[in-house]
Amino acid sequence: MFAKEVYMRRRAALLGKMREAGQSGLVLFVGNADAPAQYKDNCYKWRQDSSWLYFMGLDEPLMAAILDIDSGAETLFADDVEIDDIIWMGPQPSVRSKADAVGIAHTAPYAALGQAVSLAQKSGRSIHFLPPSRYFNTLKLMELLGVKDVKSNVSESLTKAVISLRLIKEDIEIEALDRACDLGFEMHSIGRDAIVPGIVEQEIVGKMEGMALAKGWGVSFPTILTQHGETLHNHGHAAIVEAGKLMVIDAGVESNEHYASDFTRTYPTSGKFTQKQREIYQIVYECNELAFQLAKPGITYREVHLATARKMLECLSGLGLVKGNLDEMVAAGIAGLFQPHGLGHNMGLDVHDMEDLGENLVGYDPDQTRARQLGLRSLRMARRLQPGHVITDEPGIYFIPALIEKFKREGLGHDFVNYAKLEAYYDFGGIRLEDDVLITEGGARRLGSRRLPISPDDVEAVMK
Amino acid sequence: MFAKEVYMRRRAALLGKMREAGQSGLVLFVGNADAPAQYKDNCYKWRQDSSWLYFMGLDEPLMAAILDIDSGAETLFADDVEIDDIIWMGPQPSVRSKADAVGIAHTAPYAALGQAVSLAQKSGRSIHFLPPSRYFNTLKLMELLGVKDVKSNVSESLTKAVISLRLIKEDIEIEALDRACDLGFEMHSIGRDAIVPGIVEQEIVGKMEGMALAKGWGVSFPTILTQHGETLHNHGHAAIVEAGKLMVIDAGVESNEHYASDFTRTYPTSGKFTQKQREIYQIVYECNELAFQLAKPGITYREVHLATARKMLECLSGLGLVKGNLDEMVAAGIAGLFQPHGLGHNMGLDVHDMEDLGENLVGYDPDQTRARQLGLRSLRMARRLQPGHVITDEPGIYFIPALIEKFKREGLGHDFVNYAKLEAYYDFGGIRLEDDVLITEGGARRLGSRRLPISPDDVEAVMK
Repeated sequence: MFAKEVYMRRRAALLGKMREAGQSGLVLFVGNADAPAQYKDNCYKWRQDSSWLYFMGLDEPLMAAILDIDSGAETLFADDVEIDDIIWMGPQPSVRSKADAVGIAHTAPYAALGQAVSLAQKSGRSIHFLPPSRYFNTLKLMELLGVKDVKSNVSESLTKAVISLRLIKEDIEIEALDRACDLGFEMHSIGRDAIVPGIVEQEIVGKMEGMALAKGWGVSFPTILTQHGETLHNHGHAAIVEAGKLMVIDAGVESNEHYASDFTRTYPTSGKFTQKQREIYQIVYECNELAFQLAKPGITYREVHLATARKMLECLSGLGLVKGNLDEMVAAGIAGLFQPHGLGHNMGLDVHDMEDLGENLVGYDPDQTRARQLGLRSLRMARRLQPGHVITDEPGIYFIPALIEKFKREGLGHDFVNYAKLEAYYDFGGIRLEDDVLITEGGARRLGSRRLPISPDDVEAVMK
Repeated sequence: MFAKEVYMRRRAALLGKMREAGQSGLVLFVGNADAPAQYKDNCYKWRQDSSWLYFMGLDEPLMAAILDIDSGAETLFADDVEIDDIIWMGPQPSVRSKADAVGIAHTAPYAALGQAVSLAQKSGRSIHFLPPSRYFNTLKLMELLGVKDVKSNVSESLTKAVISLRLIKEDIEIEALDRACDLGFEMHSIGRDAIVPGIVEQEIVGKMEGMALAKGWGVSFPTILTQHGETLHNHGHAAIVEAGKLMVIDAGVESNEHYASDFTRTYPTSGKFTQKQREIYQIVYECNELAFQLAKPGITYREVHLATARKMLECLSGLGLVKGNLDEMVAAGIAGLFQPHGLGHNMGLDVHDMEDLGENLVGYDPDQTRARQLGLRSLRMARRLQPGHVITDEPGIYFIPALIEKFKREGLGHDFVNYAKLEAYYDFGGIRLEDDVLITEGGARRLGSRRLPISPDDVEAVMK
């Protein structure tokens, strides 16, 4: 947790933005409850709501807060512990002292929240709340507000105000992200070193996630570790590592401060790339480097995405897998056949930062509209870059037989794609290379004190 | 997953029990959805609903089933994958082949569930469903049934029928539990071997949970690892291991087959017990042994709980911490001051098996009522033991200053408790020792092929 001034400043900024936007009434934050895995008392590892963490800092379940836009009054709703709780959870600081730790003046029991909300409703005051990130929060809001449809009552002005603050990382957040990335470096190194033909993928994942739990809060998202890189989010780990394959590891640590890291590397399971693997790897590597060179204040990340798409097609053309005019290929979205995802996303307290608040509000400037084209339509961060943005740089090339066959069947891209030659890649898998990048005044900096080996030569050297 | 005949037999038995109980209409099972940790696409590790696993076996999100009590017709509601899903999740077997794998005759899209339910409602048929175990399932049932209050519409007859089946473990389940316990043995051994003054508790937890993820599905519940054993469910792990303390480790692995293990051991952080620690340890150890000796078909686990409470008080009396007539002390609930929890619980697919279905329905025979006394009131399994019951044997002694002070303040137990002498134990912590036990025809058997060292001598020997 940061000093209380941090949270006081952030809340004051939030209310200021709401007033600037001509809003009045109350801002209601509902913190998370524990999430049952099997039943009420057997829960997944506790994780607080990220916007709550940002403005309130308190890292405990069953809390809520009401901030009065008009008067500036702030109230924390939470319960002090009873003797039964002490038996099960040990002595706890009082709600009063918790509120003090983050500079909130008033406290009330959690159960008083309902009355506070209905009183405000009766006097016709607006109640602003964010899109709920979990089923619990949806249920709680339904109950508090007496509505069936929570989604359509979400406050867009509040959502935008929160995004505008969380999008630009403060120095203390950047330090926290650097630490999370150092943990991510360590986790990835453990994973890479454990790759050996014959081992079950799950054993590698266990080693990596064990480290994430030993030194951080755990993983920042379920680990992707697969010899089927062409399946973008493969969460099964029952396969045995085979020689001669490519292993995609896309994984990150959430630090104890709850900041994320998110790296992807792709390794030859036998320690050396085949010629074919190295050719494709080199293209992805060059796209990753290009994106980092281009990323700086002023350019949009949509432009960077398209520049890497162009580079990718240029290189694939060199291999004879595509052919034709580069600009036309980019415009036709041919890159999406090979990389059906975006170049990157925002990162912060969430690995896809603020995705619960709406991908378009988070990742697109008001003057940008989201594309419909395969690949570009999945770009989560398209905005004009500003100092303090933290984004991922993660190009990839995948050979997805079902997708290629669909393109072919539907007559798509036949002017550009050498389908006959692509067939030799149906068992290739996929390659993705991802770094975490901070936009600075002068350009960009990769987060973390060390960069995971990425050039094909460096990767082969470190796998020896 | 087991052979399809297993699931067909279980569902037939369930419908048979419903008919025997004079019930008609439909049984509705709603499988789990992924549980968002931060937002819809960043979820906790997938875990299916346990009752769904028991009857339907299919280990995937967003499935439902309707079983017709009257006709015996069975329908699986789930969706086949689209091309977008293939890009993200890879090619998947069809819903039809999944239904075949567990012997379900009919399939329908997931979205058809709503219509199936409302058609049944319109024709006045009963819809039986279990208490929802997660917020998602509550929301889904609210939507499907058009009710605000799901809880009061739960089917007690279905709940009882499910409990009666799941409570008595089949041979294939016992084999799975033995395997889970072998993983639990390994996880505990890693934890024990990592105890060394100076290390942060979190590092030990990470090593243990990493192994659970490497060889099993993960932990069967959040690991308890604490030098404050007097706090029963301590989930914070920021403390540094100190010399001369007692470390309680209460942890288990969920196997890839989704069966739980649950062991507790208490270790001297310096490798040797102090005299005072050994005295209390010996008492808990003898209570654990006594419970195992007594556990056999015919006796109630409530009786076993009370017998160990008596034993505990007898030994504490030998140390001069309590005094007076043993029967009177047991009746007055004095044991609850030292062990404010029950002797054990059922275990199976859940570590507290079926706790979502209601503790009293699961753990108490119809002729048993739950006590109000501290300790005994927390007994989760009180039933008359039968072959096939799988239970935990977990006595403990804790010195909880807040609880002792409360007793003293309220004038409780002053005829029996030597409060003056207890003060010397305020910084003692707590000790708990737990095994997993199968009730057999002739008595009982501890699950797993090896037992974690438990006698004080064996513990000291293994910590050398």
